[in-house]
Amino acid sequence: MKMNAYVAGVGMVPFGKHLDKTLKSLAGQAIELALADAGVDKSALQAAWMGNAAAGVVTGQEMIRGQVVLRAMGIGKIPVVNVENACASSSTAFQQACAMVTAGLYDIVLVCGYEKLFHEDKSRSLGAFSSAVDVEDPDGAINVVKKLAEAAGEPFDAQGAGQSRSVFMDIYAMMAKKHMKNYGTRVEHFAMVAAKNSFHGSLNPRAQFRDVLTVEQVLQARPIVDPLTLPMCSPIGDGAAAVILVSERKARQMGLRNPVRVASSALVSGWDFEDPDDSVGAFAAEQAYAAAGLGPEDLSCVELHDASAPSEIQAYEYLGLCGRGQGSELIESGATRLGGRVPVNTSGGLLRKGHPVGASGCAQIVELTEQLQGRVGGRQVDGARVGLAHNGGGAIGLDAAATVVSILVREDFS
Amino acid sequence: MKMNAYVAGVGMVPFGKHLDKTLKSLAGQAIELALADAGVDKSALQAAWMGNAAAGVVTGQEMIRGQVVLRAMGIGKIPVVNVENACASSSTAFQQACAMVTAGLYDIVLVCGYEKLFHEDKSRSLGAFSSAVDVEDPDGAINVVKKLAEAAGEPFDAQGAGQSRSVFMDIYAMMAKKHMKNYGTRVEHFAMVAAKNSFHGSLNPRAQFRDVLTVEQVLQARPIVDPLTLPMCSPIGDGAAAVILVSERKARQMGLRNPVRVASSALVSGWDFEDPDDSVGAFAAEQAYAAAGLGPEDLSCVELHDASAPSEIQAYEYLGLCGRGQGSELIESGATRLGGRVPVNTSGGLLRKGHPVGASGCAQIVELTEQLQGRVGGRQVDGARVGLAHNGGGAIGLDAAATVVSILVREDFS
Repeated sequence: MKMNAYVAGVGMVPFGKHLDKTLKSLAGQAIELALADAGVDKSALQAAWMGNAAAGVVTGQEMIRGQVVLRAMGIGKIPVVNVENACASSSTAFQQACAMVTAGLYDIVLVCGYEKLFHEDKSRSLGAFSSAVDVEDPDGAINVVKKLAEAAGEPFDAQGAGQSRSVFMDIYAMMAKKHMKNYGTRVEHFAMVAAKNSFHGSLNPRAQFRDVLTVEQVLQARPIVDPLTLPMCSPIGDGAAAVILVSERKARQMGLRNPVRVASSALVSGWDFEDPDDSVGAFAAEQAYAAAGLGPEDLSCVELHDASAPSEIQAYEYLGLCGRGQGSELIESGATRLGGRVPVNTSGGLLRKGHPVGASGCAQIVELTEQLQGRVGGRQVDGARVGLAHNGGGAIGLDAAATVVSILVREDFS
Repeated sequence: MKMNAYVAGVGMVPFGKHLDKTLKSLAGQAIELALADAGVDKSALQAAWMGNAAAGVVTGQEMIRGQVVLRAMGIGKIPVVNVENACASSSTAFQQACAMVTAGLYDIVLVCGYEKLFHEDKSRSLGAFSSAVDVEDPDGAINVVKKLAEAAGEPFDAQGAGQSRSVFMDIYAMMAKKHMKNYGTRVEHFAMVAAKNSFHGSLNPRAQFRDVLTVEQVLQARPIVDPLTLPMCSPIGDGAAAVILVSERKARQMGLRNPVRVASSALVSGWDFEDPDDSVGAFAAEQAYAAAGLGPEDLSCVELHDASAPSEIQAYEYLGLCGRGQGSELIESGATRLGGRVPVNTSGGLLRKGHPVGASGCAQIVELTEQLQGRVGGRQVDGARVGLAHNGGGAIGLDAAATVVSILVREDFS
């Protein structure tokens, strides 16, 4: 969808293990930061879209999650919409808010993504992921793994899948194997992604992991499910991120310095594509590029959904950063590393910045906005002008249940 | 918000105890009925807003509830937004969809409310309601009951509140007592509401309860929490309702007979109003009337949120059907009964049609649409031209966490 909304301010709580903080306090802190960044008083907010994926199953807070957060801050009497779309919850909230602002229905709105996955009872944290598939299907996600295994011509480990790890890692592992078989991609390529993102994450004070890993270290780390080792899997995390969106009229009135415009945002829910490579991600990207009138060649930087290291390589391809099957060459070339042609996941990505699922979509917007405004210090992409955010969520059939691709552009009002 | 969207079709599964049906099958059935009613093929849908409140805590299905429903029907590759706002989940979904269609962003969209509250383990069903308050607050909803008790000058039963009943009934009971104290309302008035709605429900084949109760029977029924007896409390239920919304352009192109236009829809999340009577409901109604350019005097029929019998009397007042404190006179006068000046809850309301929370908002739209189209048989309001739907959800502070008021008008394209 073609958009015309402006990011007036962003805020984010460092991702990580926040056992001492409640869901409410995490979200509240991110919102306060975004309001301060925008120089907007909370009383000016006209509506709020609140994205959370798993509080119902992790903390028992269902139904009015956003109101609980906002009331604690004294924000009320406005429309509050609680949006849920698995790991794409807050990018869905962002897409909805952008559409409303673009349509002229509001001038100043809030979007927030917030999640608390850590729980004293680890089965609750893992249970969150099991809720992102069809729970009425007796085989659920295991079936997805099985079908992918068949497609990849790989043995299917019915015993191990989803045991003591998120079943999504089994899904990603099978997708990785298929990619390896089809295109000659090697496990070293996945390790390169994890190593690159660890370098980027080391430059991000809000990243969950700050240590730099070499390709060798990634390869030698604890195996999770073949071919994935621990640093190739996004971690469990807590966190929150918030964005204040304004209309063009309001943006001009506020005299925004370094205005960042949302040029397009496409939300697609898709499944059962014949070829998983021809995915809902490709479909959403196509829509986002067309609506923005821009292409992959225009991108200065990208935040994409590296829920696993191989996911990043697949995304290179369906986002059009390279041709089909050429993802391994792209990571090898260094083009997606800081200093390269199109740096990807300068924040550290989901792998290193962390992945508190409902918060990840907004966190991508935070990173891109700050990149386009030239204020991320050591991980700055010189002259960044156009950024793309890609956020996927859930599994249904053989594909993501929801994917959002948004394109942001640095503007100049002068 | 001023709206201009048309209801092209509606569908609904009878509310009740559907232990043999899954959440997915209930929702799917309602959607099929709505598509058939609209004469629209599922492939024409451009977006879907799916409202569910409690599946995460009742069935464990979080994150991608809507996709799970739609995929089973072969609907995909469109934006699917999962919306949650307690008992106002699907009216929130409806409000969002109306805004998008009004803004010209889509021509044909789906709104669905669906809920499965019955569970073999009854504590799960009741747990759903406990998730509609702030669960981080150690006192949670009990605090709301306590504050209301103080305001009503009533003793507070800390032991009983929320035990073996939804804590919301304690909240409604305290509100009822305050109303009785302030305005001389008597328990007989609440019984009149329940009796009236039982008569209406007896005429609705999709109502959970079809038996007609007298005022005496209501008064003599099993006490739940003073002054409420069982028929004064909305029941636990399963169900689903769906609405196909189209743009004016599409409505004309389709040549809709008996077109029903959504003239306005206001979503407000509010709390901590000084006077609970001056509620978020009043605030939302004011907005909806102003946006539609209509007032209470224009209404032919109303579906309002009678989660308890006293709630209906309070709503009469803040929706402007009568003056403050005159709700008891209004029910006594018979004005809100079929054949009266402004029949309320001709469907049987939440009390008798049932209240599968996430489904209730859409079910109100189903009833109003069919009333305005003159196709509800024995419970038809003669010459119905304007209908109002009022749906509230959750508790936060001393008020509803979300309220949606929508106004529908019968049009004539000829």
